[in-house]
Amino acid sequence: MESEAPRYPEALLRERVEARLAEAGASAASRSAATRAMLHASLVGVDSHGVRLTGHYCSMLGGGRLNKDPQLRVEQRGAGSAMVHGDDGLGHFAAFKAVEVGMELARVAGVGAVGVKHSSHLGAAGAYAMAGAEAGYVTFATTNTDSVVALFDGAQKFHGTNPLAFAAPVPGQRPWLLDMATSSIPLNRVMLHRSLDKTLPEGVAATPDGKMTTDPHAAEMLLPLGGVDYGYKGAALAGVATLFSALLTGTTLDSDFIPMYGGDDISTPRNMGHFVLVIDPDKFAGRDVFGAAISRYLLSLRRSAVRDGGAVMAPGDREWAEMDHRKAEGIPVDPDTIRFLGL
Amino acid sequence: MESEAPRYPEALLRERVEARLAEAGASAASRSAATRAMLHASLVGVDSHGVRLTGHYCSMLGGGRLNKDPQLRVEQRGAGSAMVHGDDGLGHFAAFKAVEVGMELARVAGVGAVGVKHSSHLGAAGAYAMAGAEAGYVTFATTNTDSVVALFDGAQKFHGTNPLAFAAPVPGQRPWLLDMATSSIPLNRVMLHRSLDKTLPEGVAATPDGKMTTDPHAAEMLLPLGGVDYGYKGAALAGVATLFSALLTGTTLDSDFIPMYGGDDISTPRNMGHFVLVIDPDKFAGRDVFGAAISRYLLSLRRSAVRDGGAVMAPGDREWAEMDHRKAEGIPVDPDTIRFLGL
Repeated sequence: MESEAPRYPEALLRERVEARLAEAGASAASRSAATRAMLHASLVGVDSHGVRLTGHYCSMLGGGRLNKDPQLRVEQRGAGSAMVHGDDGLGHFAAFKAVEVGMELARVAGVGAVGVKHSSHLGAAGAYAMAGAEAGYVTFATTNTDSVVALFDGAQKFHGTNPLAFAAPVPGQRPWLLDMATSSIPLNRVMLHRSLDKTLPEGVAATPDGKMTTDPHAAEMLLPLGGVDYGYKGAALAGVATLFSALLTGTTLDSDFIPMYGGDDISTPRNMGHFVLVIDPDKFAGRDVFGAAISRYLLSLRRSAVRDGGAVMAPGDREWAEMDHRKAEGIPVDPDTIRFLGL
Repeated sequence: MESEAPRYPEALLRERVEARLAEAGASAASRSAATRAMLHASLVGVDSHGVRLTGHYCSMLGGGRLNKDPQLRVEQRGAGSAMVHGDDGLGHFAAFKAVEVGMELARVAGVGAVGVKHSSHLGAAGAYAMAGAEAGYVTFATTNTDSVVALFDGAQKFHGTNPLAFAAPVPGQRPWLLDMATSSIPLNRVMLHRSLDKTLPEGVAATPDGKMTTDPHAAEMLLPLGGVDYGYKGAALAGVATLFSALLTGTTLDSDFIPMYGGDDISTPRNMGHFVLVIDPDKFAGRDVFGAAISRYLLSLRRSAVRDGGAVMAPGDREWAEMDHRKAEGIPVDPDTIRFLGL
């Protein structure tokens, strides 16, 4: 998002996003979940997964890919495990439900592992890790997504940007939050550099034959985290997302998804899978011990020596600073979305 | 390990390693676990965690840091969660026990999350992920370790090389296996380049003031995976290892460990923590669905397009090829270890 974009208050955006989803026919529960997830992303600065997706979701509700009135079904499979059937509704609805179920399981079993099937686009995985952490649980959330990242030494799009999101509660502070793609950059960074005719960093994108390129116009796919030398690690981490989200749940492989954008088919559900893991610190060393330990860890991190011109931050610190800024100054919105939301 | 190093048969090394640990006083159960973990590492080519550690462990058994006859205590904390108290013995003993406990929990609860406290050096985290996968479970194992990796923009050693290891069973094949440090390279790579006077790759190591360097003699610490531009991801993943291994278990932070090597104190236990997560595919989409899905995923990965001069491999493929080679040709052993094992 360019910084000169007009800014709008969080409350107004929340109201407009939910209104558009209601007009498109989404049930109250499912549109509320989608709105919550999009606003989380917009507030922490992940604009690619923020309010700009409202129009896309409305099209998919209209086209029939998304079920307007999904009836979630929860099947407990063990004292600490369950599957949530998303009934092909907005993915955020099924995913927040998975966090809820995970927390219920974790309160008794110590841990809740919940697979999601028959879901759709998850949005920002961090929203779900956060939902668990805000309630006091260490939480992991992941999904696989449309193929756009090469394997290490590969020459085709194989994995999605497959995010891994972790969050943990911190007494008296906002959570420790990591929400990372397993590629170095997201695809929309390539688009942005293309529109600005600006060179890409080394080792983040490749031509169709798999050669690393810094030319955004020649870039056809992304490279996994770790770049030219250590990309086998990023590729394997993308595989972890697929393992948990698609293989354990029996849903769709990255390369088998009906395209999110640009395909002709907007009426067939995509059967996406996600995975959520919720851990209750009380069932390990105990909540007090955990709280003291993470506080001490973060203090030592924030007090550690910094290189000239740098700044050391804990995962989430950048996001919370951005959230404070956007709550005060408003959330920047792109022209298409301004029109769609009638701002 | 230089390829010209003399090679010895697996069975001979197994016998000699266990004999030396027995002479140093380690109980039968604890030395058997340590031998298993070291041979795993030596067979898959992770020589830094292989049989060369025998001498170190024997010194620590002699010095009193390691309890020769640890009595493990398992405390179940929920239907899917437990803590294992390692009684300050060899870390491998406590960690394999954690996998066993995790599998027992997962059979009923669907998932078993097990923290380990009062442990010591874990060795290769992949050995534990493998132990679960060989028994049919998706398994995650991690530990935090001695500080040697800078934070992103940091100018001091903060996290350890903190490994994340995942493994998953594959019908009729050896497991999918990822065992990765959250730094780009291990510290012993710096040592090797120093001894060969060979330039390091870009973005993997830093001077004491946190500046990236390719001079192995100037390198004082490692940089996190992701290098100069995206190292915040590797640093956060190292934090995930610390979160699960140390914060949830109430054990020791990376920067608080008594040094593994080179310190004066070899008598005080180090109270290391580890974490193991075991998942039963039967309690999600089901073992058959999972088996078919991971087989199809790996087939599509191995058949995918490769860039000129490259080769696409699944996580673990390189390790299994090395294991086959070493089982046939023997395991290379360094001169100090040849002497220590009386080879």
